[in-house]
Amino acid sequence: MDKSEAAVIERLAADTKIGYSLDRKFYCDDAVFEADMDRVVSRKWIVAGHVDRVRNKGDYFLYKIGNESIIIVRSGESTINAFYNVCRHRGSLICTKPEGRVARLTCGYHAWSYGLDGALLAARLMPADFSKKDNGLHRCHIRVFYGFIFINLCDEAPVDFDASFADLAPYLDFHGFADAKIAYAQSYPTTANWKLIVENFVECYHCAPAHPEFCSMHPPEALIAFDAVDKYLPALRAWETRAASLGRPLGTVDDGPESSHLRLLLQRTIREGYDSETQDGRPASSLMGKRLGFDQGRMYLSFSPFTQLVATNDFAVLFLFTPRSTLHTDVDLYWLVDRHATEVDVKRMIWGWDETTKQDKDITENNQAGILSRHYQPGRYSEHERRVVTFQQWYLAQFGHTLACTNSGA
Amino acid sequence: MDKSEAAVIERLAADTKIGYSLDRKFYCDDAVFEADMDRVVSRKWIVAGHVDRVRNKGDYFLYKIGNESIIIVRSGESTINAFYNVCRHRGSLICTKPEGRVARLTCGYHAWSYGLDGALLAARLMPADFSKKDNGLHRCHIRVFYGFIFINLCDEAPVDFDASFADLAPYLDFHGFADAKIAYAQSYPTTANWKLIVENFVECYHCAPAHPEFCSMHPPEALIAFDAVDKYLPALRAWETRAASLGRPLGTVDDGPESSHLRLLLQRTIREGYDSETQDGRPASSLMGKRLGFDQGRMYLSFSPFTQLVATNDFAVLFLFTPRSTLHTDVDLYWLVDRHATEVDVKRMIWGWDETTKQDKDITENNQAGILSRHYQPGRYSEHERRVVTFQQWYLAQFGHTLACTNSGA
Amino acid sequence: MDKSEAAVIERLAADTKIGYSLDRKFYCDDAVFEADMDRVVSRKWIVAGHVDRVRNKGDYFLYKIGNESIIIVRSGESTINAFYNVCRHRGSLICTKPEGRVARLTCGYHAWSYGLDGALLAARLMPADFSKKDNGLHRCHIRVFYGFIFINLCDEAPVDFDASFADLAPYLDFHGFADAKIAYAQSYPTTANWKLIVENFVECYHCAPAHPEFCSMHPPEALIAFDAVDKYLPALRAWETRAASLGRPLGTVDDGPESSHLRLLLQRTIREGYDSETQDGRPASSLMGKRLGFDQGRMYLSFSPFTQLVATNDFAVLFLFTPRSTLHTDVDLYWLVDRHATEVDVKRMIWGWDETTKQDKDITENNQAGILSRHYQPGRYSEHERRVVTFQQWYLAQFGHTLACTNSGA
Repeated sequence: MDKSEAAVIERLAADTKIGYSLDRKFYCDDAVFEADMDRVVSRKWIVAGHVDRVRNKGDYFLYKIGNESIIIVRSGESTINAFYNVCRHRGSLICTKPEGRVARLTCGYHAWSYGLDGALLAARLMPADFSKKDNGLHRCHIRVFYGFIFINLCDEAPVDFDASFADLAPYLDFHGFADAKIAYAQSYPTTANWKLIVENFVECYHCAPAHPEFCSMHPPEALIAFDAVDKYLPALRAWETRAASLGRPLGTVDDGPESSHLRLLLQRTIREGYDSETQDGRPASSLMGKRLGFDQGRMYLSFSPFTQLVATNDFAVLFLFTPRSTLHTDVDLYWLVDRHATEVDVKRMIWGWDETTKQDKDITENNQAGILSRHYQPGRYSEHERRVVTFQQWYLAQFGHTLACTNSGA
Repeated sequence: MDKSEAAVIERLAADTKIGYSLDRKFYCDDAVFEADMDRVVSRKWIVAGHVDRVRNKGDYFLYKIGNESIIIVRSGESTINAFYNVCRHRGSLICTKPEGRVARLTCGYHAWSYGLDGALLAARLMPADFSKKDNGLHRCHIRVFYGFIFINLCDEAPVDFDASFADLAPYLDFHGFADAKIAYAQSYPTTANWKLIVENFVECYHCAPAHPEFCSMHPPEALIAFDAVDKYLPALRAWETRAASLGRPLGTVDDGPESSHLRLLLQRTIREGYDSETQDGRPASSLMGKRLGFDQGRMYLSFSPFTQLVATNDFAVLFLFTPRSTLHTDVDLYWLVDRHATEVDVKRMIWGWDETTKQDKDITENNQAGILSRHYQPGRYSEHERRVVTFQQWYLAQFGHTLACTNSGA
Repeated sequence: MDKSEAAVIERLAADTKIGYSLDRKFYCDDAVFEADMDRVVSRKWIVAGHVDRVRNKGDYFLYKIGNESIIIVRSGESTINAFYNVCRHRGSLICTKPEGRVARLTCGYHAWSYGLDGALLAARLMPADFSKKDNGLHRCHIRVFYGFIFINLCDEAPVDFDASFADLAPYLDFHGFADAKIAYAQSYPTTANWKLIVENFVECYHCAPAHPEFCSMHPPEALIAFDAVDKYLPALRAWETRAASLGRPLGTVDDGPESSHLRLLLQRTIREGYDSETQDGRPASSLMGKRLGFDQGRMYLSFSPFTQLVATNDFAVLFLFTPRSTLHTDVDLYWLVDRHATEVDVKRMIWGWDETTKQDKDITENNQAGILSRHYQPGRYSEHERRVVTFQQWYLAQFGHTLACTNSGA
């Protein structure tokens, strides 16, 4: 982030009012996007995919974020590496296909060849003083945690992973994510700034008007503001007792705006009489993880604004929100099921979130289009959007700005 | 317009010579386009469409100009409103289809709902101190005048409408535009700066080489420079006598470069023996307005450089030139006929202007492409292009610059 | 090149290390591209095509370079002119089709009409003091040399043509290029900076991994670094004797980085037993030029980094590398054969270079994509890429920068 970018953010942040949407420049300005990449995106642990994509040695896939292409490749039973997809010779992309299996990482240009550990193994006809040792692939920080592959683009030492995520272990373990497989994947590239996509995802004020399929699968009281409202509490408490008896670890995680990753973990019921988040409530696959039986619950886990996870009993959906440029964000969904599931009804499994994500794509693209108007001005949030306010506080905190936490008078 | 834009215009205007085309930056530079939007486009009364598009309560259409989307909606028998298509909540587009009929203006995102008068009617779950009254839609100035819907994007009080246009009433009344309907519409989006499109439209020096269909419908003497040349005068005077006897109000409007809208109204004959501007001269619809019979005349009326109107006896063509970005301009044509016409021969009616406008699209796109060259330099105008010079004087006057009106030595 | 562009180049050049690829800004930055156009592209004699495209009076074709469109037109038996395709009236493109035959150059807009010598012949209705003589088309420097049409965009006097190229006459004469015809042409527009395309073409370090077809037609020893390596020398010397006996003028041209055009002329053998650069080694056309028989040799001639020529005995391939914008370069190939050849096997003739050029397009686009990464950093060149280093020295010399010629310690 250079000085002019810092000045842009400084000026904009000073004008931001708590309880109101952000100034249009936050959503439209290339200098802000550059600053976002430097100060936010590149400093967080972001999920790039699930280990099921790289089960065997040499399996790789590419993860594209901003202008970067990252190679995620398995080099051994217990090791997955992440490298910048840039040859140390003349900068060519090394892998050009989105996924595959390789014995070595060989650049198609001049055949410089790297091991799966990134070491330069072969470079023909180089000068005598050329050091192979100094010309391994640039590494990207990586950590695999219960099946999820986290990367961190930070040039220096990144924020400590375990300090950030270790407390989620019991939940991830219970759900069996390390032992999951990808049953379906779909991309929904969206013409909108990444912050609009996050802001849309963290509030359910729009669910009733915009997401009929989604609403049909949940009790209305559970949709409001992600908070357990009074009239929902008795049902929730009863479910918690039942769910605990079926082995589910209860608990909540609700990071504040000063946290590194703004995590959120909530556990709720689905629609009465439903066993799964499907159109008719019947499961689409077999039970995941350490469950003893269907408990009619769901978990919403936000690892960070960039990585969301929604788990019902028999499948889970992983959402990757990846900034590419000021007005373009990749939205990629992976439906996870138990690795040993043999009969997965894909059509029924994806019904809810495929429709809902198409709707969200339309919604956020319309939101972005409206914000381009000279007449857009920051608008007031409802009480059901307080998670958006929290996200904005967290976002501005990445630049050293604090928004007072009171909503009064706003 | 910020200081750097003002400086760009200042420098360019100082180098502009009367009688020569403008510097390439006027046609290619984003800073100039921003200045154009601020100082010219946003301060003029521009026709967005005809009332026939919104005959019934709740009928609306969208008009896009620059980065703005404007909702034009009928709220009652005698009221048509114009609103910026930006929800006051989080800025989403409210209407996403180009036209339709609605009972309310409801945002598809969080269901904030506005009346047809723009008042915020419903916004669920807002904080107690939220004021619906302060959150109505942002209004755009609007005025309906003889069937034409004028808007003005000005933030302050716009230039007075009646002072600008009231003297056109007798002509518009005679032609019956308030009682017209749209028989056909077509869009010709053009990859060229809006000024090239205007400059092309206000001269007929190019008609002979470029527009055979157009020329075939008019006496050659009437095409020259829009002015009645000597050898055309006897025929014109004879026609004026005949036209007056059939009820046509005669007269001319010819605003100078210091005027607010640079209006022009000319009345001329069409090709001898022709009753209409069609390939064979036979009418394509029934007589419009208060006419007593076919008078073999036509009216050319420029409300402003952005809105042009050409009327023969049985139909009229409305031309909307709408700047979208530096190199993109919307060109939309509406063919108007008497509202009660039952037999409209659309194919014959559009023959002339559909072909001519396709040709104009090619012409202006080639003009823009050539101007991108480093070797383009302002060229000398012919005597038939003096309306282009007047347009440029008017354009520069919007920025406070005056070009001496002499053509000598240029 | 304005001051800011000069400053960008200055700063980048200072950081450039000999023996390493360039900083990413050289390949990605719009200011650098503008500087390249001003200081390099616009000052060189660049081949725009072959005379076979304009055999008859009035034949023309358009050559597009940067934002310029150049009309190359034959005005007489011995004269071919080059004009900027910009009407002196209002700047329109005059010719809009890529090629054709015309009696005059007439602008389709207002019918200003120019002779094939660029003189303005007709401009209707211009003011009395308008000078046709001062409004001829802007000329582009042109020189036809042994069938090749060179242009130079320089505003002032360009570098002397004969001083730059006259010594190539014996080679061009022997090969009969003035008497050639185009047997096939193909375009391979490439999404990469022009310097990457040049750097790719001037080294054969990538040939073995990337170009199997190309390699199959040549002795391996002849591919290395364009230099005749020791173990290839005996075969080369034997061939030179044989080739000379068949009339071929021997010799080499190898300009240094301080030269104006960085020319290179090398003569080598093709694969043993082959008469032509085809898949099976059999000729695809008849002998070109003054040859007395097939000599199993080839000539590689680089007129400049923008124009390359490869000639086997029966056909030659002309490569035009034309910068269009920072990330877009036109790559156009023309296969030349003897003008009187009657049986040309096009499919066999193009097999090698069509495949190879498709591969080069992929290679350079992948190279460009990788260089966009924040983690690209200039990499070390192999010993087979010293021509790339020479090109970079020459390139930087155009801006007044010298890179020390030692490769030691780099």
